[in-house]
Amino acid sequence: MKFGYEKLKQDGAARRGTITTAHGTIDTPAFMPVGTAATVKGMLPEQVAETGAQILLGNTYHLMLRPGAERVAELGGLHTFMNWDKPILTDSGGYQVMSLSKLRKITEEGVTFQSHVDGSRQHLSPERSIEIQHLLDADITMAFDECTPFPADEETAAESMRLSMRWAVRSKEAFQQRDGYGLFGIVQGSIYPELREESAEALKEIGFDGYAIGGLAVGEGQELMFQTLEKTIPHLPEDRPRYLMGVGKPPDLVGAVMRGVDMFDCVLPTRSGRTAQAFTRRGTINLMNARHAADPRPIDPDCQCYACRNYSRAYINHLLKCQEMLGPMLITRHNLHYYQELMAGMRSAIEQGALQQFAVNFEAQYTGGDIPEI
Amino acid sequence: MKFGYEKLKQDGAARRGTITTAHGTIDTPAFMPVGTAATVKGMLPEQVAETGAQILLGNTYHLMLRPGAERVAELGGLHTFMNWDKPILTDSGGYQVMSLSKLRKITEEGVTFQSHVDGSRQHLSPERSIEIQHLLDADITMAFDECTPFPADEETAAESMRLSMRWAVRSKEAFQQRDGYGLFGIVQGSIYPELREESAEALKEIGFDGYAIGGLAVGEGQELMFQTLEKTIPHLPEDRPRYLMGVGKPPDLVGAVMRGVDMFDCVLPTRSGRTAQAFTRRGTINLMNARHAADPRPIDPDCQCYACRNYSRAYINHLLKCQEMLGPMLITRHNLHYYQELMAGMRSAIEQGALQQFAVNFEAQYTGGDIPEI
Repeated sequence: MKFGYEKLKQDGAARRGTITTAHGTIDTPAFMPVGTAATVKGMLPEQVAETGAQILLGNTYHLMLRPGAERVAELGGLHTFMNWDKPILTDSGGYQVMSLSKLRKITEEGVTFQSHVDGSRQHLSPERSIEIQHLLDADITMAFDECTPFPADEETAAESMRLSMRWAVRSKEAFQQRDGYGLFGIVQGSIYPELREESAEALKEIGFDGYAIGGLAVGEGQELMFQTLEKTIPHLPEDRPRYLMGVGKPPDLVGAVMRGVDMFDCVLPTRSGRTAQAFTRRGTINLMNARHAADPRPIDPDCQCYACRNYSRAYINHLLKCQEMLGPMLITRHNLHYYQELMAGMRSAIEQGALQQFAVNFEAQYTGGDIPEI
Repeated sequence: MKFGYEKLKQDGAARRGTITTAHGTIDTPAFMPVGTAATVKGMLPEQVAETGAQILLGNTYHLMLRPGAERVAELGGLHTFMNWDKPILTDSGGYQVMSLSKLRKITEEGVTFQSHVDGSRQHLSPERSIEIQHLLDADITMAFDECTPFPADEETAAESMRLSMRWAVRSKEAFQQRDGYGLFGIVQGSIYPELREESAEALKEIGFDGYAIGGLAVGEGQELMFQTLEKTIPHLPEDRPRYLMGVGKPPDLVGAVMRGVDMFDCVLPTRSGRTAQAFTRRGTINLMNARHAADPRPIDPDCQCYACRNYSRAYINHLLKCQEMLGPMLITRHNLHYYQELMAGMRSAIEQGALQQFAVNFEAQYTGGDIPEI
């Protein structure tokens, strides 16, 4: 089966489509839960699927350090290793090298760094990153790029982006074409429209199966992120999926879908699940808060997820106070369900040509974080 | 429906029976997973049921401190609170007061102690313990007893046991009879046969729905434990279930069933799950051990549990190294399955009059702990 994107419907700049991969089809716009170390923290794979997720993200950086890409390959690849038979996208490791490792040295050839796990000397290059992702058996492989720091002046951002574009050429050359497997390029250029355009054009020239927008959600704020999307997306091909990396909060997802983004990943629903933050239609609530201790209601009375069908806020509050694993497990499950339901709602709205109205309704309901009155 | 025990078959001293409760029937001999703080750590209730468990144990001591018995009652009782609709047995709190709390003061009236959670002053008496268990809605309530330290000289053990017998009278008086709910007395007397006999006779005189054997598995060793069972069980009525509290390792369960015990609880399968110890037919293995890091086999190739059907030792070893919650979740699920399968095997053997042979086979296979060659 050929890897590919099909656009089913357009609504403004937003697109309803499907991505076909070796391990199944993904309905877009799609949200990918993050399974950093070959597990979505606190979730069984079938529970992740039950929330509606059709694709997971795995982290090249973490998996190369533990258990090692060759080890995963010997054990049948990441799908078999972690018991997830649906599509997997792996990032290239570039971002985590910058955010997690120490003593980095970047050259034209690649990056040498110290493992945050055991201090060992490690190396990543476009060729090695692509090889690792091949060994992991990722349905979607990401080109190796340098993560431009934020803020960066235009010259720094340009140099960094151009290095990533040269690495994109090498990533493409290193990628082994296989039926159902795809390679995505990553647009860089910080918040500078000309650089984003230059980057997008360079990637199109190389030719990728999909185009990611990297280097956002790094502190620039929603307004600048949306502006950058508006300046970048018109330069991306219509017939390929677009992936906004590391985003984001629910309002970010809605705004980005309206601007033509098809794919997202973010640790927010899972990480929040481990810090007592639950998403509701009206905003987040902190279930550690004493006001929930006697509350017989579920997290969200309008939610049909496993946690909301079976457990009270009082119970979850109790679990959190006792530091019981089940607390994070239940909130994570709820949060992932919330995210997937949000995406399903947007897909349905696009199909009906009603995304604008969906966004208006969403914004009227979603007040923000730590809503005391919910 | 009336609470009651029915003996279906006898094989030597071992009994195959059923206990009928308000929330369902329990096949005995039975193992009860421990759900200390209203959760079996790292498990969803339906996963616990899937292992074959028909009854859980809840801890009065922990639940009275957090979230509080009145709170649980307001929220519909422990079954509703924790989403477990099968039978629940609660202990009386006596053991945990001695093992977990500080600054204890024991009088004829009861025990005053300091909470290990927040240092607050707390009180338990036979009347309050029974009231708490009623509020929790336990199908099986345990009489409040004093946990005799081990070792104890005969005089100390006698005084402690006689206090527990006076408290047993008060527990019986405080217990509210309801259809499908039962109250168990607890035989004490340390390792002294005469004291065990005296205690058993005293409890029979009071009259209980079941009889527990307490104060064992506290360091006396398997031989003394079995001897004490042999001296105690003949003094217990044939038509009531017998519960050996806090036991034990798999060989302890087999030996105790052969001596006429019907019920067990122990944290071993769940706690071991959180410390990387997995039970197999041949003994325990430590999945943190480096020798498992590349092993594609499941924990136990002969096991049909969820963990063994879907995950390799290599994957679980990886999860443990990364301190991922899923590691303990999977080992706990396997261990509980192992324990339930062991109990099911013994029930089946008793039905066929073949428990002796079952025990011989078990001992030939089960070598002990940390078996390197498995």
